[in-house]
Amino acid sequence: MDRIYDDPAFFEKYSDMPRSRLGLEGAGEWHVFRNFMPDFNDKDVLDLGCGFGWHARYAAERNARRVVAIDVSERMLAKAESMDSEGIEYRLSAMEDLDFSAGTFDVIISSLAFHYVKDWDTLIRKISSWLRPDGDFVFSVEHPVFTAYGSQDWYYSEDGKILHFPVDNYFYEGERDAVFLGEHMTKYHRTLTTYISSLLDNGFTITKLAEPEPPEDMMDIPGMKDEMRRPMMLLIAAKKTR
Amino acid sequence: MDRIYDDPAFFEKYSDMPRSRLGLEGAGEWHVFRNFMPDFNDKDVLDLGCGFGWHARYAAERNARRVVAIDVSERMLAKAESMDSEGIEYRLSAMEDLDFSAGTFDVIISSLAFHYVKDWDTLIRKISSWLRPDGDFVFSVEHPVFTAYGSQDWYYSEDGKILHFPVDNYFYEGERDAVFLGEHMTKYHRTLTTYISSLLDNGFTITKLAEPEPPEDMMDIPGMKDEMRRPMMLLIAAKKTR
Repeated sequence: MDRIYDDPAFFEKYSDMPRSRLGLEGAGEWHVFRNFMPDFNDKDVLDLGCGFGWHARYAAERNARRVVAIDVSERMLAKAESMDSEGIEYRLSAMEDLDFSAGTFDVIISSLAFHYVKDWDTLIRKISSWLRPDGDFVFSVEHPVFTAYGSQDWYYSEDGKILHFPVDNYFYEGERDAVFLGEHMTKYHRTLTTYISSLLDNGFTITKLAEPEPPEDMMDIPGMKDEMRRPMMLLIAAKKTR
Repeated sequence: MDRIYDDPAFFEKYSDMPRSRLGLEGAGEWHVFRNFMPDFNDKDVLDLGCGFGWHARYAAERNARRVVAIDVSERMLAKAESMDSEGIEYRLSAMEDLDFSAGTFDVIISSLAFHYVKDWDTLIRKISSWLRPDGDFVFSVEHPVFTAYGSQDWYYSEDGKILHFPVDNYFYEGERDAVFLGEHMTKYHRTLTTYISSLLDNGFTITKLAEPEPPEDMMDIPGMKDEMRRPMMLLIAAKKTR
């Protein structure tokens, strides 16, 4: 993953986003993603790419037995640890470098982090092995429609109006030079086929899938209505059944 | 569904397409879709929107017990019936108007027809009821990326070069004025979320999903390389498990 999240200027901008300041309630997809969350009571939980730790805390507050929260950014983890984090084990690591015994966790969650991962095939195999039978895997990722072109920006008319969202190079997976909060960063585009097939091939049954629309009560936020024009996120819940 | 398939001029153009002349082997997605086909031996099979009947014949040739093939176009059915159709019951009907007893079929297939259906919720409920437990539902449909904008055409530069494929109004489902073989026709856009959720909500387990890429040996056909730039079809295999 890009080290951009440890860049002070970027980190400041990221910290100012509603989802960073307000946590889950400030995230436009949470009204959908919350329904994807399994019962955390007495469960061993892994959060991959925990950021400020909002999802890890959500699990801990719902009586998870153990919560391990991973992030590759020191600044992210420092911020996460500065908040009430009772019962959460934070670890500084790229998720690709993790190594757990088979069947270590009941639940693995990840929010908007997998599009920074280069080698998805290896990671999904590991995730499957780390889960116990009937374990839950719940994640959000940037939508393939959103990552295909690269710039992640609208296509505009000469006078600066949004015309539409561009899709290109869809079947050419891999590195993209994306712009987020004004900074360039590397993300990885993968097709829907890759996400779904990798789950099916690694013993998962898909239980829920959603491309979240903005919640009604956020529609007045500038730019939010445009979120109806293209999917930006893909949310998936899956169960390890084989 | 649009009555365009009974328009003589359109029908002639449609009949000239490789997938119409050559059947399954002339269809760019068949090298993937064929792997989605279940065992047809001794099965009762329904083909929704059978067109020239290529898939129905495929099932019949693989020793299906019974094959019922439905299409709304008289011309399509006449052409289908003119080919070797032993053991296939052709019926002229909109698929929305069909009525079968619960548990009538072991397999329901449909190729590129559901994007003509206005009321998907009702149809998928019926399809689920028509299938026996552990029955197979295998279908292809135009990809939500392909149907969202409406025109189903690329976005071009002033000098006529393809720039990218436009996506817009993704979360506004419903009618689109599409152009196919130079003719305007009504198609219905639905999100990926709708297709997947409707399957999960109606007792199906998703067993396969693919956005087919063009086969290697068709890459030299003019325009085929551009098919790598955006997904055009969505193929899904599902099993009725609940």
